[in-house]
Amino acid sequence: MSAPAARDDGAMPLPAVAHEGAGERPHRASSQVVTCVDYSPGQVRLQVVADLADFLEHHRPEWAAVRWIDVAGLNDMSVIDALARKYELHPLAIEDLLSRSQRPKIDAYGGEGSDLNARLFITTRTLHLEGSDLRSGPASIFLGHTTVLTFQQEPSDVWEPIRQRLGARGSRLRANDASFLVYALLDAVVDAGFPILDRFDARLDELEAEVVDSVDRETLNEIQHVKRQLAVLRSSVWPMREVVAALRRDPHECMSETTKVYLMDLYDHIVQVVEIIETYRERASDLTESYRSSVSFRTNEVMKVLTVIGTIFIPLTFLAGVYGMNFHTFPELNQPWAYPAFWAVCGLVAFAMIAMFRRRGWF
Amino acid sequence: MSAPAARDDGAMPLPAVAHEGAGERPHRASSQVVTCVDYSPGQVRLQVVADLADFLEHHRPEWAAVRWIDVAGLNDMSVIDALARKYELHPLAIEDLLSRSQRPKIDAYGGEGSDLNARLFITTRTLHLEGSDLRSGPASIFLGHTTVLTFQQEPSDVWEPIRQRLGARGSRLRANDASFLVYALLDAVVDAGFPILDRFDARLDELEAEVVDSVDRETLNEIQHVKRQLAVLRSSVWPMREVVAALRRDPHECMSETTKVYLMDLYDHIVQVVEIIETYRERASDLTESYRSSVSFRTNEVMKVLTVIGTIFIPLTFLAGVYGMNFHTFPELNQPWAYPAFWAVCGLVAFAMIAMFRRRGWF
Amino acid sequence: MSAPAARDDGAMPLPAVAHEGAGERPHRASSQVVTCVDYSPGQVRLQVVADLADFLEHHRPEWAAVRWIDVAGLNDMSVIDALARKYELHPLAIEDLLSRSQRPKIDAYGGEGSDLNARLFITTRTLHLEGSDLRSGPASIFLGHTTVLTFQQEPSDVWEPIRQRLGARGSRLRANDASFLVYALLDAVVDAGFPILDRFDARLDELEAEVVDSVDRETLNEIQHVKRQLAVLRSSVWPMREVVAALRRDPHECMSETTKVYLMDLYDHIVQVVEIIETYRERASDLTESYRSSVSFRTNEVMKVLTVIGTIFIPLTFLAGVYGMNFHTFPELNQPWAYPAFWAVCGLVAFAMIAMFRRRGWF
Amino acid sequence: MSAPAARDDGAMPLPAVAHEGAGERPHRASSQVVTCVDYSPGQVRLQVVADLADFLEHHRPEWAAVRWIDVAGLNDMSVIDALARKYELHPLAIEDLLSRSQRPKIDAYGGEGSDLNARLFITTRTLHLEGSDLRSGPASIFLGHTTVLTFQQEPSDVWEPIRQRLGARGSRLRANDASFLVYALLDAVVDAGFPILDRFDARLDELEAEVVDSVDRETLNEIQHVKRQLAVLRSSVWPMREVVAALRRDPHECMSETTKVYLMDLYDHIVQVVEIIETYRERASDLTESYRSSVSFRTNEVMKVLTVIGTIFIPLTFLAGVYGMNFHTFPELNQPWAYPAFWAVCGLVAFAMIAMFRRRGWF
Amino acid sequence: MSAPAARDDGAMPLPAVAHEGAGERPHRASSQVVTCVDYSPGQVRLQVVADLADFLEHHRPEWAAVRWIDVAGLNDMSVIDALARKYELHPLAIEDLLSRSQRPKIDAYGGEGSDLNARLFITTRTLHLEGSDLRSGPASIFLGHTTVLTFQQEPSDVWEPIRQRLGARGSRLRANDASFLVYALLDAVVDAGFPILDRFDARLDELEAEVVDSVDRETLNEIQHVKRQLAVLRSSVWPMREVVAALRRDPHECMSETTKVYLMDLYDHIVQVVEIIETYRERASDLTESYRSSVSFRTNEVMKVLTVIGTIFIPLTFLAGVYGMNFHTFPELNQPWAYPAFWAVCGLVAFAMIAMFRRRGWF
Repeated sequence: MSAPAARDDGAMPLPAVAHEGAGERPHRASSQVVTCVDYSPGQVRLQVVADLADFLEHHRPEWAAVRWIDVAGLNDMSVIDALARKYELHPLAIEDLLSRSQRPKIDAYGGEGSDLNARLFITTRTLHLEGSDLRSGPASIFLGHTTVLTFQQEPSDVWEPIRQRLGARGSRLRANDASFLVYALLDAVVDAGFPILDRFDARLDELEAEVVDSVDRETLNEIQHVKRQLAVLRSSVWPMREVVAALRRDPHECMSETTKVYLMDLYDHIVQVVEIIETYRERASDLTESYRSSVSFRTNEVMKVLTVIGTIFIPLTFLAGVYGMNFHTFPELNQPWAYPAFWAVCGLVAFAMIAMFRRRGWF
Repeated sequence: MSAPAARDDGAMPLPAVAHEGAGERPHRASSQVVTCVDYSPGQVRLQVVADLADFLEHHRPEWAAVRWIDVAGLNDMSVIDALARKYELHPLAIEDLLSRSQRPKIDAYGGEGSDLNARLFITTRTLHLEGSDLRSGPASIFLGHTTVLTFQQEPSDVWEPIRQRLGARGSRLRANDASFLVYALLDAVVDAGFPILDRFDARLDELEAEVVDSVDRETLNEIQHVKRQLAVLRSSVWPMREVVAALRRDPHECMSETTKVYLMDLYDHIVQVVEIIETYRERASDLTESYRSSVSFRTNEVMKVLTVIGTIFIPLTFLAGVYGMNFHTFPELNQPWAYPAFWAVCGLVAFAMIAMFRRRGWF
Repeated sequence: MSAPAARDDGAMPLPAVAHEGAGERPHRASSQVVTCVDYSPGQVRLQVVADLADFLEHHRPEWAAVRWIDVAGLNDMSVIDALARKYELHPLAIEDLLSRSQRPKIDAYGGEGSDLNARLFITTRTLHLEGSDLRSGPASIFLGHTTVLTFQQEPSDVWEPIRQRLGARGSRLRANDASFLVYALLDAVVDAGFPILDRFDARLDELEAEVVDSVDRETLNEIQHVKRQLAVLRSSVWPMREVVAALRRDPHECMSETTKVYLMDLYDHIVQVVEIIETYRERASDLTESYRSSVSFRTNEVMKVLTVIGTIFIPLTFLAGVYGMNFHTFPELNQPWAYPAFWAVCGLVAFAMIAMFRRRGWF
Repeated sequence: MSAPAARDDGAMPLPAVAHEGAGERPHRASSQVVTCVDYSPGQVRLQVVADLADFLEHHRPEWAAVRWIDVAGLNDMSVIDALARKYELHPLAIEDLLSRSQRPKIDAYGGEGSDLNARLFITTRTLHLEGSDLRSGPASIFLGHTTVLTFQQEPSDVWEPIRQRLGARGSRLRANDASFLVYALLDAVVDAGFPILDRFDARLDELEAEVVDSVDRETLNEIQHVKRQLAVLRSSVWPMREVVAALRRDPHECMSETTKVYLMDLYDHIVQVVEIIETYRERASDLTESYRSSVSFRTNEVMKVLTVIGTIFIPLTFLAGVYGMNFHTFPELNQPWAYPAFWAVCGLVAFAMIAMFRRRGWF
Repeated sequence: MSAPAARDDGAMPLPAVAHEGAGERPHRASSQVVTCVDYSPGQVRLQVVADLADFLEHHRPEWAAVRWIDVAGLNDMSVIDALARKYELHPLAIEDLLSRSQRPKIDAYGGEGSDLNARLFITTRTLHLEGSDLRSGPASIFLGHTTVLTFQQEPSDVWEPIRQRLGARGSRLRANDASFLVYALLDAVVDAGFPILDRFDARLDELEAEVVDSVDRETLNEIQHVKRQLAVLRSSVWPMREVVAALRRDPHECMSETTKVYLMDLYDHIVQVVEIIETYRERASDLTESYRSSVSFRTNEVMKVLTVIGTIFIPLTFLAGVYGMNFHTFPELNQPWAYPAFWAVCGLVAFAMIAMFRRRGWF
């Protein structure tokens, strides 16, 4: 057990896990970090756990109303095995939390024995942007009466603020039960979607301007890239709706009434995110449409130029060609007025053509 | 408490809030206006409240059957805090009414204590046009047994007519309970959609004419602008349907039977608005289609002109070129009939080409 | 009371209202016609009512099992007020029947007092063609135990045949109760849709032929006009489905079992009309597609002509130009075989080009 | 009663109706054929009925467990009237079976009296191909306890195999009750769809090849023709799903448990047909897409040819034109290297152009 | 009975059927292989059955908790008949398992007598790739209390791993009942979809690159080929969802509670597969869009080249033509500055044109 940080009352914010344990975990992305937070309304303790098997042998402190163990990065199976043994997790749940492509869902496993046996298993997907690419990885939550276990495949900072708020004296989080913590965890996942949506909003604004100004093939690729990422986003968020609806609807012994009121609110947030995504997808479709119209429009412009020049000069060239012929009997050639007349005819033809184009609104 | 305007019987219309308090609130858009209307079938009193905390300490007059407090513009949190304390509003509701992007929804919070505790919390979105841009802001309503609280993020005139009608003696509004006032408030929000739809109708008519007459890139942008605004409109109105359906369907102690009959009617209006929006969206899609066909059609026209001129004169130019060649042995050149024959051939070729184009229906 | 036409047994058809009262109502479109039919299996009486207030003071004849009052054209509010007072119609229903854009719906108002109090209020939309434009106006029906009131905003002939059938001895209509009359009225409205659909069918056939033969911008406008009218038609008929389904499903004291069997049939008709509309909409969409393909195809044809002529003659013109050059040392010019050789090369080039075009299937 | 063909045990197949009665009904398509089959597990009798009124006066043989009367071709109303009187058919059902455009549906009419009174009325649509055109006509079935009546508007051979199977000793059909016969009739109608689907499959395969090879306007018309016919097919089959689902779901005294098991299977077949239709509709849509891409692609090809030829020779023609000018002071003309240099420049320009086109992948 | 491989405890993996019997079945694809596995938690025996009729006469060993008979390849009807007689399979089920196009479904047949009588009949579709073509064939499963029968139309290796796992000591499969085996069989079918999806993923990636680089007609055909195969995949997997949902939902005496928990998981996998398919279909649609834009874009490029060259040189050619004319009075020709001036004008025109094209962003 490394870095136990027990405090009688967490009035001061807890140090962020990412920094506190930085010395011990130099390659955070590739290693596993296990943190355990025990809390009750009056007290909180955050520990970064180095040796989980040893840690699990000790009883939790008596004052702790809720214990939350978070496993970030799933490359050390022994940790998962230790937790699965201790809390008798269902083999199917273990399989699901290891799957990279697991979609959000909720399962209720009945059973007796340890606390987590009568428990809910929730899978969600955390979202973050890497450059302009959306990354989405599964994160799983087990909810028991007084225990919450969380597993993240890609360690992200999405739940760091929750730890901070648990450290704050008088926080609503600490005053409530384990199911309220689960609400807070899910809420953090959904809220992480809003800044991502803002980025997409900005990108779409840029693309909308680009499509009008200049058209190259790259633009279409980018539009479709955004479209594809919105589809990924949607497939991560949409099933969360069902998950939260099920949490609210289906009675479960671990789920308190207070939490259900808050889940109602979370449900609304998810619906809102999904609606915004739909709006953005429509914008992306409109962009494709604009792109195509832009290309057609430009082809039209190009053709107009060629047609205007061509229709004026092709007949005139013919005329010039005529008077370049070498017929021996060519009445016009030796008239003094012939040359000026030639230019007059040319001017007339050009003027007539231009007048016609103007009438058609070509320029 | 500023400008109390108690009257025994509001037979005369109440002065519009916007004008009455104009002296006190020079920057209406950026400041908060709190108005309180107490009414019973026989009596009505409108007050613009300057110091809400003080105001809330006094009891409402005994004759008042319903009290309606409206907060327009939400930049002074102390006002909201005071009301939240007084009426024990749920923290989640406060959060929702402050969110700029809250979609229409309804929540029922049970509870005991003050009148508003057993209450409904309804969020709707007010709509108005700024130039040709649609603006939509959330407006929230709390309904208790005898109290209605409303919060508007963007002060709009949408509820001004309600105040006017409350001032009218024998008004149906005054004869009914608080839930009927809520119906009237929602009805006013929905009715505000009809003139906006009329504007879109006119805009679409214009665009339909424009697409036929002339095609420039601006037209497509405008079509898509209208499309996007219709999507905004829809996302504001569509969830209202669920809200009103829930109000009608779910029994609630604050909701009277009379109001439910009227909600049935409101529900129909919302469905009607949504159907009109769908029709307009279809028109906008058809316009995009027309635009693209228009561009293709024009390209076709342009090409026809070039092709007609080109196919007539290119062969003739070749012919002229032939007789401009300097071969020493050139049999035709010294025939007297050669020059007229050249013109005859040219005429023949041109005539044949034109005949072919006519047969193909090109002009 | 004008033109009372009581008969002991209506074996002869009743004179059509439109003609009977023609002398009194010269501007039918702009005035209101109120007709009252009292009937029982054995007897029928049709009256065109001039002074409704006076008329309503009298009791209906004792032999009359059902009274049907029809108000065609809603420009005289006093008539509606008189009926509303007499039959205690709900203010919301009055509002709805006056609204021009009311969509079909059904409301049940409970209540005591006069016969119509325990009544159903049904709104439908009558359809007729004016030239090639579809007109649709709301028509409302109140059904009480023994009374039917109908209000049409635009006087149409849709219910004239019902009056004729009521005049026929042994008619199924007369043998049944008031709810059966309502069924017959709704059935007449739906049946009026079939000839309109036939007109659309013919129009689509014409357009399908037009798109193949010739393409001008007018064609696309007409296609979209038909599309828009089909949308209007659909929005009038589709909600009728719900209305009839509700009539069948929800028990109501005014609705007899016999009528419910017939409503089942009417329901099927409505579904059929809606399906035909959907088929026509799909045809209209296919037409748009055909139109666009037609334009593309024609552009392709135009381009082929230019390309064929251009690729043959542009190189030949170059060749002619070469031998028109004035270089002093020009070996070919004074060879006697040069001129025939020039033509041979020209022929060869043209032949090769034409062969290539043929191989590509261009003509 | 003509051609009674009673046999003690129908071990031999019954002669096909189409041939047996051929002498009496020379214009089968335009006349009505009434056939009656009485059967029980051990016995069967097929009769072609000439005088139905007379026939109906006789009682059915005592051994007959089920009587099936089939009316093919509905041009003689007296036949329908006779059956309607005998079996007290509901007037609405008569109306429906005469309607040419009746969509598949099921109605249950309760009632007492004759056997068919407690009966089901089912409408389906028979399908057959005439050349490449799909024809679809309504066929109606009445099911009583021991009686089945069928009416086909267009006499087709769809139910001939059923008669054959009824003639076979030990057939599952004969061993079961009247409702099983109805299952068999519906199954025959659905199975008749599979060969039609095979034809569409082959047609789509042809069109897919055509679109790649050559593009003419006819192809698009054919694609849309197939699309439209698939829509007709779908609108005939899709409502059958509801019909069979209702037969399975709703308990009815005429419907045996055995039949319900078989209806489950029929339901699956209908779903399968509908899914295949959907797949074909998608293929037809893809074909339209291919057609349009093909046209665009060809326009592109055509343009490339013109551009290649044009961009090479237009500059060269200019150059030739330059050296054809008659300026008196023209330095290059009398240089001996001028003419070869001209060709060198031409070759260089042409080579550069071709290199550029190759780099752009144009050929 | 060939190759009985009884072992007391299958700790060693069973030899794969495909290899073990290879000597006896040289043409595996065209012949039928019947394998029988008897197992209980402690014991397992795999037999390849040569003479099924003989085999079925013997009783299964007493220690066997579950017997699984698999028939791979359905060309020998006598085998199916023997099983149908022995286990009293419903004739409709036999019909379904022989149908090549049977879609996934589930039927419950009640009944008494042999073990399989109270049984579930499940049809699924196995999937495998042949080159780049997706093959899908029906596979049927009968589930009794202690017996599982499986029939595959196309022998595939999809259930080979199940046999391997049955051979492993302490396998979860062996510890559970017959319904768990059915779960495992269905799970194997669904899991076989994931590598196929990976292949489609790779193919779509390739096509996305191809569309950008080069456009030929083949590309579009391939896109549509992928689209069509995804539709096939979807139609195989989608109905599995209903099948598994029904297995979970409907209580059945053969279905254990443990299996239902695992089916919940399988259901999630199916939903996941379907969602991935939908994503790929969207990608394929986007590809079609890209292809079309690519073609338009290239046409635009081609046109630009022609227009640039044409608009520069066509006017210049006219100018050269002018000075090639043979008018006798031609003032410019004998000016010494005329020739350089000509080139200056040419340069000016070309420069002006190029400047205009640059300003328009054409190159």
